[in-house]
Amino acid sequence: MIHPRRRIAILAEGKFAPLSAKTAAGVIRYSPHEIVAVIDSTQAGRCVRDILGYGGETPIVAGVDQALAMRPEVLLIGIAPSGGQLPPEFRRDVREAIGHGIEIWSGLHSFLGNDAGLSELAARTGARLWDVRRPPAVLDVAMGRALRARAFIVLTVGSDCNVGKMTAALEMEKEAQRRGYKAEFVATGQTGILIEGDGTPLDAIPGDFMSGEVERLVMACDADGADAVFVEGQGALMHPGFGPVTLALMLGAMPDAFVLVHQPERACYRPDYDIELPPLPDIIEGYERLMLPYKAPKTTGVCLNTYHMSEQDGLAAIQDTARQTGLPTTDPVRTGIGPIVDALEPHIRRKLGWQKTG
Amino acid sequence: MIHPRRRIAILAEGKFAPLSAKTAAGVIRYSPHEIVAVIDSTQAGRCVRDILGYGGETPIVAGVDQALAMRPEVLLIGIAPSGGQLPPEFRRDVREAIGHGIEIWSGLHSFLGNDAGLSELAARTGARLWDVRRPPAVLDVAMGRALRARAFIVLTVGSDCNVGKMTAALEMEKEAQRRGYKAEFVATGQTGILIEGDGTPLDAIPGDFMSGEVERLVMACDADGADAVFVEGQGALMHPGFGPVTLALMLGAMPDAFVLVHQPERACYRPDYDIELPPLPDIIEGYERLMLPYKAPKTTGVCLNTYHMSEQDGLAAIQDTARQTGLPTTDPVRTGIGPIVDALEPHIRRKLGWQKTG
Repeated sequence: MIHPRRRIAILAEGKFAPLSAKTAAGVIRYSPHEIVAVIDSTQAGRCVRDILGYGGETPIVAGVDQALAMRPEVLLIGIAPSGGQLPPEFRRDVREAIGHGIEIWSGLHSFLGNDAGLSELAARTGARLWDVRRPPAVLDVAMGRALRARAFIVLTVGSDCNVGKMTAALEMEKEAQRRGYKAEFVATGQTGILIEGDGTPLDAIPGDFMSGEVERLVMACDADGADAVFVEGQGALMHPGFGPVTLALMLGAMPDAFVLVHQPERACYRPDYDIELPPLPDIIEGYERLMLPYKAPKTTGVCLNTYHMSEQDGLAAIQDTARQTGLPTTDPVRTGIGPIVDALEPHIRRKLGWQKTG
Repeated sequence: MIHPRRRIAILAEGKFAPLSAKTAAGVIRYSPHEIVAVIDSTQAGRCVRDILGYGGETPIVAGVDQALAMRPEVLLIGIAPSGGQLPPEFRRDVREAIGHGIEIWSGLHSFLGNDAGLSELAARTGARLWDVRRPPAVLDVAMGRALRARAFIVLTVGSDCNVGKMTAALEMEKEAQRRGYKAEFVATGQTGILIEGDGTPLDAIPGDFMSGEVERLVMACDADGADAVFVEGQGALMHPGFGPVTLALMLGAMPDAFVLVHQPERACYRPDYDIELPPLPDIIEGYERLMLPYKAPKTTGVCLNTYHMSEQDGLAAIQDTARQTGLPTTDPVRTGIGPIVDALEPHIRRKLGWQKTG
């Protein structure tokens, strides 16, 4: 689905950095929209590329008042705090934007539309409030329909939350398209939905219906004639808080292959757990074994997020992980997604029943 | 927590049977309230014991108008349909009860309080609408705190949904109390909450917070000085729709032991799946193995639900299952929970650090 191209200002006050403003960073990298400003008074005067390494000359400004000079049509809340509430220090900025009739896009758990003060103001100024995480009105329980999909289904799974599963899935989708496959991306989190214009806010769906939502989206891609479907993973299977969402993705998507995503410096689950991550081979075995009642998906490669590492350390981590897991390993941003899609292609072609063309 | 004792009529129109009206049956068996009537026009004139085998002379009547003669204070919606909507044929009965100022208790996914027609009528007549499945306003993400509980934590897990996990947990709680333990029951579904007066409607909680809700309740029991906590399981780990809720229970409760619950005639997942259940030993291994990153809980026994079987077939099924699994096996209703609590006691005493008293 293609959005009409909009002019967007991103609110990330005090938090504009690749991981603390994951939504902001993802939208800046992958969205088809024009990002006209980022609001973070602590970094005003710099530009987006200074912080992220991409995103060009887009200015970072101190407040909504300054962003108005760039004539934004949309204010996007570009942070994803644990717990999902609107931080109090953002409230004034959001009110100011609504006061100017600017549309608000929010991926927070706490819905702006349910906030009487904000929604009354929006009704007066005509500003639309889009709560991306608001679940669909009609939800279904999963029936295992994805077991009968023609398309090859890839699920990105993680060693933890917030490691780069959406990025890995988007990069695989784009690379598969470049290679001539009809590839689709299934968005399951706020940033992915903001990029794709479609998807399900999986962590906001009542437990009984999470896997049903994933099944619905995967089967819509299949009905649409997709050759390969790349599903945005969430959480990690044994993460104390987010494991259930991960299992919903597994049961809803019934994947033919996993791609594991990991951040090499990560020792403990985020945020703020004193629980260590298991070794990667144990994590891989955990995902593969759990699916055996349905399918025997293999982990076809590992995507590392080496953003915070030097070039040398990042490349060393990739080599180490390849050795430790015996799997093709890459950083999709630093070294490209090619090796993972190379490894997936024979499996995709086999499921589709395509002739080998050498 | 103790409810004040109320006079309750249970609406189960066209569905009053042990499994199709699971909520009705559970409340009739375990609730401290007085059940004054069951409404099911297809079975009017009979009494509850005729249908369930327990519940005494409580009459089954044809409609709310007839139930009014029994002066109910509460109309409880005693069915739990897949998908959780109010069946259209119930709507007239619910309206009539609200019209008479009678309080409505509902465990449906679809909230009566969000139904403008019903809630306006309730506002006029003063009838309270209690949507048991409405999530708490404040939710937290699980932190793995249950790993540090003093109490021994038992989770009932299933081969499928709707097999008797609540009953097994309630029977264990009561038997442990009889044996002198401070035992508590954690309710995680609508029937359990209606019985216990407390708990969390787990399948209505957004995915990120399900295990946090379980952790909150388990740790509240622990803070309360419980020796043993019996957590009501939900779903089944690899059920396509309900598996994520099961994993939330595992990650939130961090159980010291599992008790597996199964219905011997069950071949496929319910409702209406064409997917066969795995063999019991595989199911047991699946639960135990998945927890290994945190704990090594063992499955201490198997509770069978042999309600639909003859005495002879039920006893044979218990023997077969004991042989197949090598575990103490019982039907808590037919043959009593004793053998399971016998098997749990040494583990409970060991965790509590109690001296062996022979």
